[in-house]
Amino acid sequence: MICKSLKRRAQKMNKQIQITSSQNEQIKRWKKLRSRKGREQFRSLLIEGEHLVKEALRSKVTIRSWILNEQSKEFIEYLDHPAPIYQLSNSLFASLMETQAPQGIAAEIEMQSWQIEELLETDDLAKTFLLLDAIQDPGNLGTILRTAEAAKVTGIFLGKGTVDRYNPKVVRAAMGSVFRLPIVQMDLSTCFTYLKENGVTIVNTSPHAGNLSFEYQFPRQVAILLGNEGNGVHSDWLSFVDDEVMIPMPGNTESLNVAVTSAILLYERIRQLSIAF
Amino acid sequence: MICKSLKRRAQKMNKQIQITSSQNEQIKRWKKLRSRKGREQFRSLLIEGEHLVKEALRSKVTIRSWILNEQSKEFIEYLDHPAPIYQLSNSLFASLMETQAPQGIAAEIEMQSWQIEELLETDDLAKTFLLLDAIQDPGNLGTILRTAEAAKVTGIFLGKGTVDRYNPKVVRAAMGSVFRLPIVQMDLSTCFTYLKENGVTIVNTSPHAGNLSFEYQFPRQVAILLGNEGNGVHSDWLSFVDDEVMIPMPGNTESLNVAVTSAILLYERIRQLSIAF
Repeated sequence: MICKSLKRRAQKMNKQIQITSSQNEQIKRWKKLRSRKGREQFRSLLIEGEHLVKEALRSKVTIRSWILNEQSKEFIEYLDHPAPIYQLSNSLFASLMETQAPQGIAAEIEMQSWQIEELLETDDLAKTFLLLDAIQDPGNLGTILRTAEAAKVTGIFLGKGTVDRYNPKVVRAAMGSVFRLPIVQMDLSTCFTYLKENGVTIVNTSPHAGNLSFEYQFPRQVAILLGNEGNGVHSDWLSFVDDEVMIPMPGNTESLNVAVTSAILLYERIRQLSIAF
Repeated sequence: MICKSLKRRAQKMNKQIQITSSQNEQIKRWKKLRSRKGREQFRSLLIEGEHLVKEALRSKVTIRSWILNEQSKEFIEYLDHPAPIYQLSNSLFASLMETQAPQGIAAEIEMQSWQIEELLETDDLAKTFLLLDAIQDPGNLGTILRTAEAAKVTGIFLGKGTVDRYNPKVVRAAMGSVFRLPIVQMDLSTCFTYLKENGVTIVNTSPHAGNLSFEYQFPRQVAILLGNEGNGVHSDWLSFVDDEVMIPMPGNTESLNVAVTSAILLYERIRQLSIAF
């Protein structure tokens, strides 16, 4: 709970606007943010519910608007962040939300963007990247991002065909990680070339690899390549791969879920770094 | 492709029945299999699509019926298994299926059941169990089962509050593992007691554990306990836990997805077993 004086300050700081018409320009704008095209056009996304709002507040994102329904006075305590507050009729609020029983709070936040050069400039001696080639399932991408933040990866590259990282299902499964991770959406071919020129080793998993993942010594700067759920890594990228590793699977299965694969390799990477330092 | 003579044999072996009425008793029965209650009443489930049918055929499940639509002659090659073939009108077929654009093949298969005693009787010196306490998300349970099969676990115990393992989303995410894994649905308190009496060590993850997962020496017979997505392991079970381990998370996150947690611990278990033998 935030003290009353802060609450009053918050209420004072923020411009409050009531909206009751679905023809309002803001409403039209927010409706557009439900599609990837709209999000990219406005460089903005909507987040829904108390949990994600808290995650956004503890990250370095810019909040452009607060969006409340009629019952959401209880949330006023969060609104210390100086953005205008829009109070919508309940039906109008519900019409904007993806979740079926939305909590009374949402926010419009600014998309973040990074350049590959920034990610290579960090001081860390050991750098770990993920290269995601056409990951299609939002739950998988969200889980990969959540795990990647826990593993403190240096950055993530999303190739063509990968689901939008600001898709609401991705944002929910990522539990706020999408606001904090350096993510670059770019052509993977350019990405591979740049990484290799900067001394980063590209590692791919393969059921035919000679190295078991825990026998392979991960180099200081490494990018782990993960492919599409059904088809794996696109054949165009295989010529860029420096090393292949195999995750041990004693059981009777062909493959692992891609989020599971990423988690196992990131865990192995952390294990090796923990032993090395 | 199966050769023509086999196709003919299959067509001969199987009784073919046309159904066009939604009032047909079989249709009513299959509709009931869409709910957990119905599946448990008939000890049966429906599986949809070519991929799952192939997975069922390569497992030891009993197929009770083949269910085809009007266009599904192409699937006749699979029907070597001696179960009656029901051919349904397209609309009737679609009304039974969970998937929005179903392929023209489905099957009713018998639920499998195991007893805890059978799982402890295997000859393996090293036994690995998973204990799942109230895992609610079908995608998570399915991914855990898929990973568990790859890791060749001895068996899985599902406690109260865990989503039905035969929920169609679980079955899809598990990629057929649900047909092959020994799974016991039972009261966890009875389960803990039985496992401990039989020399199995219960291991839980905790962010406060003294042991990092890769420093902890997994015992020969171990059961890994995994809790609910939001609330973790129920406090009632903590007194049964023998050892706690912490998965290293250098990043700024509180927790990992439960399917990711299970994958990392199973991978660590395999790593240790590979080094030991």
